[in-house]
Amino acid sequence: MRKEKRIVVSKDNKTPFHNNVDFCIGTGRMGLALTQEYQEQLKLVQEQIGFRHIRGHGLFCDDMAIYHEYEQDGVRKAEYNYTYLDRVMDFYRSVGLRPFLELGFMPGKLARGTQTIFYWKGNTTPPRDYKLWCEMVQNLLRHLMDRYGADEVVTWPVEVWNEPNLCGFWENADMQEYFRLFHEAFHAVKEVDCRFRVGGPAVCGGTDEVWIRAFMEYCSEKKLAVDFVTRHHYTIEQPVREGHYDYVKLMKPEDGFDNLKTSRDIIDSFEVYKDLPIHITEFNTSYTPKSVIHDTNLNAAFIAHQLSRLGDGNESYSYWTFGDVFEEQGVPFTPFHGGFGLVADGCIPKPTFWTFVFYKKLQESAGTCVYRDDNMVVLRKPDGSYLGVGWNPVEFGAGEEQSITLSLAAGDGVYSLLTETVDEETCNPLKVWHDLGEPANPSDGQTKLLRQAAQPFVQTCRVACAAAEVEITLLLKRNAVVYFELRKCGIQSDRGYDYERAVGGNDGE
Amino acid sequence: MRKEKRIVVSKDNKTPFHNNVDFCIGTGRMGLALTQEYQEQLKLVQEQIGFRHIRGHGLFCDDMAIYHEYEQDGVRKAEYNYTYLDRVMDFYRSVGLRPFLELGFMPGKLARGTQTIFYWKGNTTPPRDYKLWCEMVQNLLRHLMDRYGADEVVTWPVEVWNEPNLCGFWENADMQEYFRLFHEAFHAVKEVDCRFRVGGPAVCGGTDEVWIRAFMEYCSEKKLAVDFVTRHHYTIEQPVREGHYDYVKLMKPEDGFDNLKTSRDIIDSFEVYKDLPIHITEFNTSYTPKSVIHDTNLNAAFIAHQLSRLGDGNESYSYWTFGDVFEEQGVPFTPFHGGFGLVADGCIPKPTFWTFVFYKKLQESAGTCVYRDDNMVVLRKPDGSYLGVGWNPVEFGAGEEQSITLSLAAGDGVYSLLTETVDEETCNPLKVWHDLGEPANPSDGQTKLLRQAAQPFVQTCRVACAAAEVEITLLLKRNAVVYFELRKCGIQSDRGYDYERAVGGNDGE
Amino acid sequence: MRKEKRIVVSKDNKTPFHNNVDFCIGTGRMGLALTQEYQEQLKLVQEQIGFRHIRGHGLFCDDMAIYHEYEQDGVRKAEYNYTYLDRVMDFYRSVGLRPFLELGFMPGKLARGTQTIFYWKGNTTPPRDYKLWCEMVQNLLRHLMDRYGADEVVTWPVEVWNEPNLCGFWENADMQEYFRLFHEAFHAVKEVDCRFRVGGPAVCGGTDEVWIRAFMEYCSEKKLAVDFVTRHHYTIEQPVREGHYDYVKLMKPEDGFDNLKTSRDIIDSFEVYKDLPIHITEFNTSYTPKSVIHDTNLNAAFIAHQLSRLGDGNESYSYWTFGDVFEEQGVPFTPFHGGFGLVADGCIPKPTFWTFVFYKKLQESAGTCVYRDDNMVVLRKPDGSYLGVGWNPVEFGAGEEQSITLSLAAGDGVYSLLTETVDEETCNPLKVWHDLGEPANPSDGQTKLLRQAAQPFVQTCRVACAAAEVEITLLLKRNAVVYFELRKCGIQSDRGYDYERAVGGNDGE
Amino acid sequence: MRKEKRIVVSKDNKTPFHNNVDFCIGTGRMGLALTQEYQEQLKLVQEQIGFRHIRGHGLFCDDMAIYHEYEQDGVRKAEYNYTYLDRVMDFYRSVGLRPFLELGFMPGKLARGTQTIFYWKGNTTPPRDYKLWCEMVQNLLRHLMDRYGADEVVTWPVEVWNEPNLCGFWENADMQEYFRLFHEAFHAVKEVDCRFRVGGPAVCGGTDEVWIRAFMEYCSEKKLAVDFVTRHHYTIEQPVREGHYDYVKLMKPEDGFDNLKTSRDIIDSFEVYKDLPIHITEFNTSYTPKSVIHDTNLNAAFIAHQLSRLGDGNESYSYWTFGDVFEEQGVPFTPFHGGFGLVADGCIPKPTFWTFVFYKKLQESAGTCVYRDDNMVVLRKPDGSYLGVGWNPVEFGAGEEQSITLSLAAGDGVYSLLTETVDEETCNPLKVWHDLGEPANPSDGQTKLLRQAAQPFVQTCRVACAAAEVEITLLLKRNAVVYFELRKCGIQSDRGYDYERAVGGNDGE
Repeated sequence: MRKEKRIVVSKDNKTPFHNNVDFCIGTGRMGLALTQEYQEQLKLVQEQIGFRHIRGHGLFCDDMAIYHEYEQDGVRKAEYNYTYLDRVMDFYRSVGLRPFLELGFMPGKLARGTQTIFYWKGNTTPPRDYKLWCEMVQNLLRHLMDRYGADEVVTWPVEVWNEPNLCGFWENADMQEYFRLFHEAFHAVKEVDCRFRVGGPAVCGGTDEVWIRAFMEYCSEKKLAVDFVTRHHYTIEQPVREGHYDYVKLMKPEDGFDNLKTSRDIIDSFEVYKDLPIHITEFNTSYTPKSVIHDTNLNAAFIAHQLSRLGDGNESYSYWTFGDVFEEQGVPFTPFHGGFGLVADGCIPKPTFWTFVFYKKLQESAGTCVYRDDNMVVLRKPDGSYLGVGWNPVEFGAGEEQSITLSLAAGDGVYSLLTETVDEETCNPLKVWHDLGEPANPSDGQTKLLRQAAQPFVQTCRVACAAAEVEITLLLKRNAVVYFELRKCGIQSDRGYDYERAVGGNDGE
Repeated sequence: MRKEKRIVVSKDNKTPFHNNVDFCIGTGRMGLALTQEYQEQLKLVQEQIGFRHIRGHGLFCDDMAIYHEYEQDGVRKAEYNYTYLDRVMDFYRSVGLRPFLELGFMPGKLARGTQTIFYWKGNTTPPRDYKLWCEMVQNLLRHLMDRYGADEVVTWPVEVWNEPNLCGFWENADMQEYFRLFHEAFHAVKEVDCRFRVGGPAVCGGTDEVWIRAFMEYCSEKKLAVDFVTRHHYTIEQPVREGHYDYVKLMKPEDGFDNLKTSRDIIDSFEVYKDLPIHITEFNTSYTPKSVIHDTNLNAAFIAHQLSRLGDGNESYSYWTFGDVFEEQGVPFTPFHGGFGLVADGCIPKPTFWTFVFYKKLQESAGTCVYRDDNMVVLRKPDGSYLGVGWNPVEFGAGEEQSITLSLAAGDGVYSLLTETVDEETCNPLKVWHDLGEPANPSDGQTKLLRQAAQPFVQTCRVACAAAEVEITLLLKRNAVVYFELRKCGIQSDRGYDYERAVGGNDGE
Repeated sequence: MRKEKRIVVSKDNKTPFHNNVDFCIGTGRMGLALTQEYQEQLKLVQEQIGFRHIRGHGLFCDDMAIYHEYEQDGVRKAEYNYTYLDRVMDFYRSVGLRPFLELGFMPGKLARGTQTIFYWKGNTTPPRDYKLWCEMVQNLLRHLMDRYGADEVVTWPVEVWNEPNLCGFWENADMQEYFRLFHEAFHAVKEVDCRFRVGGPAVCGGTDEVWIRAFMEYCSEKKLAVDFVTRHHYTIEQPVREGHYDYVKLMKPEDGFDNLKTSRDIIDSFEVYKDLPIHITEFNTSYTPKSVIHDTNLNAAFIAHQLSRLGDGNESYSYWTFGDVFEEQGVPFTPFHGGFGLVADGCIPKPTFWTFVFYKKLQESAGTCVYRDDNMVVLRKPDGSYLGVGWNPVEFGAGEEQSITLSLAAGDGVYSLLTETVDEETCNPLKVWHDLGEPANPSDGQTKLLRQAAQPFVQTCRVACAAAEVEITLLLKRNAVVYFELRKCGIQSDRGYDYERAVGGNDGE
Repeated sequence: MRKEKRIVVSKDNKTPFHNNVDFCIGTGRMGLALTQEYQEQLKLVQEQIGFRHIRGHGLFCDDMAIYHEYEQDGVRKAEYNYTYLDRVMDFYRSVGLRPFLELGFMPGKLARGTQTIFYWKGNTTPPRDYKLWCEMVQNLLRHLMDRYGADEVVTWPVEVWNEPNLCGFWENADMQEYFRLFHEAFHAVKEVDCRFRVGGPAVCGGTDEVWIRAFMEYCSEKKLAVDFVTRHHYTIEQPVREGHYDYVKLMKPEDGFDNLKTSRDIIDSFEVYKDLPIHITEFNTSYTPKSVIHDTNLNAAFIAHQLSRLGDGNESYSYWTFGDVFEEQGVPFTPFHGGFGLVADGCIPKPTFWTFVFYKKLQESAGTCVYRDDNMVVLRKPDGSYLGVGWNPVEFGAGEEQSITLSLAAGDGVYSLLTETVDEETCNPLKVWHDLGEPANPSDGQTKLLRQAAQPFVQTCRVACAAAEVEITLLLKRNAVVYFELRKCGIQSDRGYDYERAVGGNDGE
């Protein structure tokens, strides 16, 4: 059953909408940035979306091979190896990215304990010697400043550790130990150059009262002029595992937004930290890299809604992650395995990829938001053209099919309407892969076909303005995300060209 | 109104079908092969279709700068310049092409008269000295053999001149003069290496009784072991010109096929030339490079029909042309100007491009034709899978919409069906360009959008075999060309993966 | 016999040196920019040198197909075609170039007469109707501003015609007619946007008293606020032609510089035009595109001298031309045919290419000139490092071999010296091509070899500072150009690495 | 002091020389093939040399993630993941390589013990269950055959394990256990397809009497129709370690060749295995990846000698390794760290790279060896041209400088001589890196400079034949490798071109 909705946008509409979609994107651990598939996927993302920062784990993990010790004349000494670090940073810069540096995890040689996390065994224990750890951080920053210039490197935000409120990520989830780590890091980094911006505590959602408040109190007490606060944001209930895969149930969106609001309120309750920027340094629907939902059109539509709201109280929000080269739970058996990525292995854009493409277009338009609700956001550009995104996540939207008619204030003339549709029928590589038999190792031809089936469906038409209004109708099918542009555009046919006659079939008159 | 048709393909079906779609493709004059846009368009064509030979005019035209004369000690001497020739040939070879050499037109310095043809002024008069002309031809062939190897170069067919039956192309359409040219060329080429295959008379359609018969008689009389006969094949009535553009009326397809049959019959009536290969060295719907029909879906559907039949009495048939870098009637004002090309300027595939892609897939499949009618051709591969192409040119097809149900003999199991649809709704860059306002000089963004709108629409589904038959239905809308593949394909889900549950929406159970 | 010279550079040395080497580069006619070989050569030039503007002939020539007329209702009307123009401009911008627009030559349809110049037949007669001509110019500028933005396009300098003082380039070298053309152009362009900078008269050298003075007087009288003056600068006696080639005798460099000084003085003698920028919109040794000297090391060394001086009274100086895709005297028979280009066909850098690379390094260094004579220029950077270029054109240099010892004021420590040598032994593709038998059409392998033989010879060594001086010696062999960099640079060997022991041969101790 | 030598090559010279230089190349562990730097280096190697097979460790190591187990209904089951395997194999094939499969090391889940080797921790213990291991091997081969075709995959040789005679590589160097492994593997592989060729025992040098003989005896006794024997070949004394680096002393070459001869003799002493192919599946000078010698010109010259002899009793010999992406002893701190590679990190060819380029040219020439000694090998092609390689490793050559004069039987005419010189002065990136201060993390500019300094020095000249002999002289400086080509080649100057006059300096006559 199709629901119908009518929206009137007058000349004076104006709605707040903080769209910072391109600020940051998540990534699998830094060591994976050395691989070809990772680089191909990130190139695709940067060409079509173009993020500004990238954040992930593993800067100091052993596969980056940064920290070493040796004995000389009976004394243990540290030495640093930046061979891989520079290779990764050179690559990031070649695709227009700056790191959002996460200081973690712990080099084996510097660790107090042996606890590790993930298939790739990141050590998640505190340093056995904070002085050595601070020296390592400082040496690394100075090396980066030598190589890339101090003015450049100080623009890279620094976040201390990841999710210390979980005992897998930080031994015993020891809050006081984390505060010490933060304190040491804060001073060490600022000592290198006081222009660096440093933040934390990078906690997962739902711990506001415990961790966020305690963190602000700690900073306040120690008079740390922390530059920003970070937290994460996932929107599912506990997943259910079957074999390699997780099946999840989405939370109601408003519950998630309320949760974010709590963080904002707590921070603002500290006079000195009021309006301090919050960076959501990770968000997605599900928080496991084998969650089948990530590959679906539902995910794309749900995230479209998120992107319309996450800027409300937060400076930025970083989707976790750009691609499926990830490995936290091992090497995937198939291209569509529910990885976090916007892009599946084989450089196949998933539906959610396009959600980001569309919001980036909104951002680049420099338009003003003139309408926003739970299914749509509409912008008007200074030249009077409109653009917007609509979405229809089946359970939280308006059902199987929704028809939205926009009546847009406009000047006389004829308009050109462009829509790009991503829904289960038009842009659904997961279905194609399934119909091909779910090949674990697609052939080149199959991969090419999957890429072809992963493009938005483009349609155009011409619309006339009547009575200072242009009326257009968007059809949002099940789990659709639809982008549109409407701009005034006469037709200046070349001498002798008559389109209607050209396509009118078979006549020479 | 939708028409419906049902086709049953039994195990024993077998139908003759000579598909030589990739043998040869036409091109704008050779000098244009030096340009970037030409090369980009040809690369696209070769990557996605992959022809084996290329044929066009202009080898000896002045912009190729091959023939020169100078005076030394009071004597005029010839000298040859292969700088551009080699550049073009090197490029052709880099994209996997061999020339189908057309000997023409006349270098200004060697011409008897001053008559020229086209915007680019090809001289279309006989040589002032046949000896000099033969020396030029021989010198060129020897140069090519030096550079590319004799064994390679002798595989390049040689055609003498182009459409001498038209007085624009050959002064006064002088038949006896042409026969002399052919005779001289024939011997000159064979003298270089008798393995060369030489043919003519490259006439346009409708002159069989006059030119084809006379040519065969001349060869017969002179005992020339001509290697093949060439002619052209266009399928329209006289075009109507408006401003820069031509509007045309298509002939009934059978009239064209009858016309081709006439050539075949005349040739076969000469005992010595019975079954001599006929190469259609040019074909298309309209014969002008400003015919708006070339950019339409109708053209794609009409050509799909042609490709199912042209091999019936002919060895090959070369679509005129691969791309819109052409210039015979000047430089186009807009990207969609009715050029001959499979590809519009800006590297935008036109609908007809996909007709060739689909026939190439048929050819590569090594399948056996099991069904052919005026709307469809179906092949079966040795492994029991099927593939085929359907088309529906609105006037000569079954109307606005036709539904074809295929009942295909098959073994037990579940099958995967893939369709790629090119019709006015799914793959119609001309319409998008029109709706964008018919921009003469599209921006980069518009060109990218046009390319995106020029891809076939991919769909897949799963079909079960019942009672040794798989039944599939193809929907051919107005001017559609649809490709399908059906192959047996079980699903081997990875451990724990359940597609239905994955896309079933929002649940964690 | 080796000459020796010793130069002492103290801490206080400072010498004027206006190095604007990358401002502009010349090109073959604009229509050639559509070709692949042209684009490859220009890409190479831009990657390794990186010019900012490009200037050449042919904007309005018929192969660009811009100007058209048609009759409607008995009235002749103009129409404009920017298909090729945009293709060229898009390409220029993709390699970081802006045009230095030369308004010329005359579209056939707009020309008063039939006189043409060059193999490619540029019409060099005045417009038959100045109003139509001005409309064409304005329409073109407005089109460019639409496509590339007004703020961008007004930064493209506009020069009116080319070498009107020669009757081949401007019918009868009619000065008054040129002044009219300039006058019309000046107002037409400024009317489009007054920010455009417009200049002329683009004369060849040696006509200062006649043309430059008259031009300034005309402008002065008409109160034209001309933005800059342009002229050309070639430095040879009359060439001698043999077959396809020209052999030339170089002028004494000082004679050329004196000639340039004359233009400067004449302009400065007009109060209102004092210090008006002079752009040398063409310079080279010889002014024919078949001058064998262009491919030699002598040319590179002679031009190195020119580049050290041309900025003295001139704002810029544009080498004629970047590459050998040119055609003014026809299509070259061989890759080394004495073309103007920095790059030979096949993307082979000629020795003079490196002269520009080296001066670009000087320019990018942001160093201060501390020494300049007829064989060398030396810069010091703020960090105390030095770099410079030396040259030795055999006749105007110091003979077959010159050894220059530089004693450079410096701080304590050890220095790293880098030299790149381009001379007849180390970087001489012409000789290799000759030794290979002067192949007219080199194979791929030969072309690759020629490119390999066309690289500068790199050497490094370590030099210690003694008594606040570092002493280095450069050896300038016959027709050498040598670049050097000297920078303080300690060695920080990795733990355990000992270079001397590593290369000391065969020992394990 | 320069030594001089004169060699006369008559018409009848003919010398055995089995040059199979391109058969196989070594690589760091397979998992590294996923990285970008690895792929770039291998592409460079394949473009310029072009090997046919590639062999390295790590196929079954945990980072390839092939072998997994899970529990279902209380039963442990195996599952296989070919995601990374296919990615690596696809890449190899894209650069024209086939694997020389080494079955090793042991997946952690399948291992009997916990002993590992290298920084990357390859498990080097036997399988805990041979049946599971055989199933894994067979499953992998069948997967490869599915993906790449059975006819293709059976051409990939299979070697069982690596250096089982060393206890680091095979627990306790347990010979009987290895024989069991071989036996199981042999039957498992042949069961999949009897066309597979299987060999071993992949031992390091110096164990002929112990391992090679025992292996042959075992095979003989068990009646295993082993397809080939493999061993390794390094040519140094025990290295000395300082900090991160190893310093080595080279063996006398003849001692190494004698050692190889021993293997040949032992094998040939078994009637049934006489003339069985021996593949040297690893060779180099030093056997550690931090041996400074690998980066030197000495290494290049020493290996040139090896390549002239290794084919004498062996089918092939695989240099260990193509590039420096390796990691067995950790991540290198600097680009020149004595890695095994032909290419240093940053895609900088080392001198030894060119030794392989030159031998590949010999191989491609299809020439006949007409001379071979300890400093030179010379071939004659059917067309009468000559080519060859000379070398002068300082200790084992003829000292600091050797001049070799070749008197070559030839026909009348003029010849073109090309030489490419790789010696300490002309092609020595290690020295340049040292002189630049041994930067651990070179800038882009420095890396570019290092690549530029790593090219052979090209020289050409023209030589006349006199008395049926052409005499040429090659100068082999310290540690030089010199390649030459001599071919008959007249000069066909274009009309008017006179090279001597062109470069004669400054004249127009």
